[in-house]
Amino acid sequence: MRKFDLEHVYESQQFDSELLDIIFTVADEMKNDLLLKKRRYSQVLKDKIMASLFYEPSTRTRFSFESAMARLGGSILTTENAKEFSSASKGETLYDSTRVMCGYADLIVMRHNKPGSAKMAAEASSVPVINAGDGSGQHPTQALLDLYTIKDSFSTINGLSIAMVGDLKYGRTVRSLSYLLTKYSNITIYFVSPSVCRMDDDIKNYLTENDIKWKDEDSLEKVLPLVDCIYMTRIQRERFPNPEDYESAAGKYIIDVEQAGMMKEKSIIMHPLPRVDEISREVDKDPRARYFQQAGNGLYIRMALLYLLLTNNPDI
Amino acid sequence: MRKFDLEHVYESQQFDSELLDIIFTVADEMKNDLLLKKRRYSQVLKDKIMASLFYEPSTRTRFSFESAMARLGGSILTTENAKEFSSASKGETLYDSTRVMCGYADLIVMRHNKPGSAKMAAEASSVPVINAGDGSGQHPTQALLDLYTIKDSFSTINGLSIAMVGDLKYGRTVRSLSYLLTKYSNITIYFVSPSVCRMDDDIKNYLTENDIKWKDEDSLEKVLPLVDCIYMTRIQRERFPNPEDYESAAGKYIIDVEQAGMMKEKSIIMHPLPRVDEISREVDKDPRARYFQQAGNGLYIRMALLYLLLTNNPDI
Amino acid sequence: MRKFDLEHVYESQQFDSELLDIIFTVADEMKNDLLLKKRRYSQVLKDKIMASLFYEPSTRTRFSFESAMARLGGSILTTENAKEFSSASKGETLYDSTRVMCGYADLIVMRHNKPGSAKMAAEASSVPVINAGDGSGQHPTQALLDLYTIKDSFSTINGLSIAMVGDLKYGRTVRSLSYLLTKYSNITIYFVSPSVCRMDDDIKNYLTENDIKWKDEDSLEKVLPLVDCIYMTRIQRERFPNPEDYESAAGKYIIDVEQAGMMKEKSIIMHPLPRVDEISREVDKDPRARYFQQAGNGLYIRMALLYLLLTNNPDI
Repeated sequence: MRKFDLEHVYESQQFDSELLDIIFTVADEMKNDLLLKKRRYSQVLKDKIMASLFYEPSTRTRFSFESAMARLGGSILTTENAKEFSSASKGETLYDSTRVMCGYADLIVMRHNKPGSAKMAAEASSVPVINAGDGSGQHPTQALLDLYTIKDSFSTINGLSIAMVGDLKYGRTVRSLSYLLTKYSNITIYFVSPSVCRMDDDIKNYLTENDIKWKDEDSLEKVLPLVDCIYMTRIQRERFPNPEDYESAAGKYIIDVEQAGMMKEKSIIMHPLPRVDEISREVDKDPRARYFQQAGNGLYIRMALLYLLLTNNPDI
Repeated sequence: MRKFDLEHVYESQQFDSELLDIIFTVADEMKNDLLLKKRRYSQVLKDKIMASLFYEPSTRTRFSFESAMARLGGSILTTENAKEFSSASKGETLYDSTRVMCGYADLIVMRHNKPGSAKMAAEASSVPVINAGDGSGQHPTQALLDLYTIKDSFSTINGLSIAMVGDLKYGRTVRSLSYLLTKYSNITIYFVSPSVCRMDDDIKNYLTENDIKWKDEDSLEKVLPLVDCIYMTRIQRERFPNPEDYESAAGKYIIDVEQAGMMKEKSIIMHPLPRVDEISREVDKDPRARYFQQAGNGLYIRMALLYLLLTNNPDI
Repeated sequence: MRKFDLEHVYESQQFDSELLDIIFTVADEMKNDLLLKKRRYSQVLKDKIMASLFYEPSTRTRFSFESAMARLGGSILTTENAKEFSSASKGETLYDSTRVMCGYADLIVMRHNKPGSAKMAAEASSVPVINAGDGSGQHPTQALLDLYTIKDSFSTINGLSIAMVGDLKYGRTVRSLSYLLTKYSNITIYFVSPSVCRMDDDIKNYLTENDIKWKDEDSLEKVLPLVDCIYMTRIQRERFPNPEDYESAAGKYIIDVEQAGMMKEKSIIMHPLPRVDEISREVDKDPRARYFQQAGNGLYIRMALLYLLLTNNPDI
């Protein structure tokens, strides 16, 4: 098998299908190891330190990475809201901050509000940097866990049709996931969104160039019976420059028991969370609801990435 | 001995005298182990992760739990002020947050500003939840360490008379401690408070139903010579809806050297801390002053709870 | 060799040349151990807990200490901004906070905005306290790593001439470093600063009493060819009571390629970081630029201090 040869993880475009296979194989192994309490990997990163540099708070993503590091026996340095509390507020560049921080840790997990930050940090850093979300840019580990959840449900990705629903303009998870889907064949994507937050052309062109069929849709009801996977997203007020656009988009698409009833028996319902009211609580009991399991998969994917980036000859 | 059969710790009413005995026995063992540097338990939770989910900051309580986890060899995920920094601010329910977080940790310690939060989280969680204070609700581990401190001083709780002094209406520690005292016999409680912050009737009725004698008092001087234990509390400005009520209550009860002189030789002075000026600094030297030792006992009680909740067959 | 006999580290005046030798020897050992991956010390503080009590945020300094603790196998309790989030805001004294916290940790690292805080905490504490900066007071571990960096470059400190440049009135690093330099002989210091932020007389008198030559200078260009070490500092807006004074001081001294060209071949350029524009990015490539290495040395110095303070008979 090809070796995992990435030094950093900053965008979905870095992955090809072979690398995805390696990551998913290691994630499977980590999942098994934890569920069967084998503890083969519980001390494997004992002498390693991970620094969580969150310039923007996200308890969920941070805990997912830190839990992964703890499950592998590593140490954690953490910051909940570095932007407000750090040299950044004194005018220090991200370049300088990263050069200093990489002297204190063996790997940096960075969340930042500016697109491109993680890549910039990776260039300054002598240790691996993982992008944990850079504003309206990317969130590649979310895309990996999303894809892993789909693969886990259907065994394969090839041939599936997927609806991405909600804010497709400002939501970075759907952008990152779209990039990854081009590594598979015979995929159809439905972009279901209000007209004010359609998926941008850069992604659409990239999909077309890579032989992925896609279609803009207004009506959720129309696509529900057609797809294998509904990927719901939250309409985030803070991402809309214009409040009126937010008002016209919010609350337009909701999955409740009635909507779920229109879906295929073997389909799945995903959501990157947090949800507000895009999916009603009653749907949680539906076996097709996979969003909490999806969040849980974040642990295995991040364990796999930490393991692959921090060990030279992973032996699985 | 009966097994420790609690899954979560959210309120004082969960404990009966047998469970209290188990907890105090394990706390004694932990205390001995640490003081004699035996290190029998220093790696016992090595593969476990505790998440501190503090939606409201409290460095003292958080460090006490995290120190307990570290002393048992476990890992810690921490958040200093999750309310401000998390999905809660994006409209996520506590139910969803808890379902996600319990995928990343083996136990959740939760501090929240809303009464009932910990119980609600316990219902959503697949891992044990410990209430580290839920607003004006309860703070059961504080009550346990308070009781443990009394027991440590007098060997028994039965037959003691205790004065609770200060803000008895908004102070949750005195409420939680009152519940626990009903597990013992022949107890007398004096509620010493300004009229604007008397102990509420729900507690008084509960005490009466459980054969605990209680009495409202205005005068601290009057009860000082009568009691075995003075439990002082801070009048907290932030708990008073009406500022005038706060002004009339603040500074009314103070223990200084003169007051301490009126107390029995074998009595003790407690305070959940932080204090402002309810107890003067000179009293710290009095051997009856137990508030710093009381804070230290928090470590042993929390070690005991973590150990009991995270191991199936505690062998002490 | 003399034993390391300090209980706490709160100010530079505590060190004599013998203690400095011990610390630098241990720091060298730690550096070697890490770089050669020998791991002789990777579990040496396994049963110890360090609490980072930062009443004022500083991610860089905090991570440097926490990385040191993690590299020695110890556990960490951390707080990013305790001032805002803690009992301090409820009126608790530093004395009480420290008495409680020292029950939860084996060593306290404290950052505080008030000068003298660390010494006050040391008096209340039953465990070692390290000052990680107390406002306009001191930052002794920064001074130690500064001196260690100079020693690392020149093998000796004796006989060197050093220019301290920028805000010498409000910058605590230059004050702490000046104290340490009196332990060596034949030193010359040039204080290069705008007239509004000259080095204070207390330091100048202390230097004179201890046979250190010093001189105020306005012109950076004049001293560049004369010195072995340029120690640049940032002019910090927040330290100036009067905004006009800040405006007249900011941007006055800058090291760019042209300035670096005036320096001796064997000289070095230091900066405690973060920098804003005192040193241009192009200078980073100059082999005489030592500021990132200087930051990295913080790790070894802090490992040495943690090791020396927490083990009774250090055997190196």
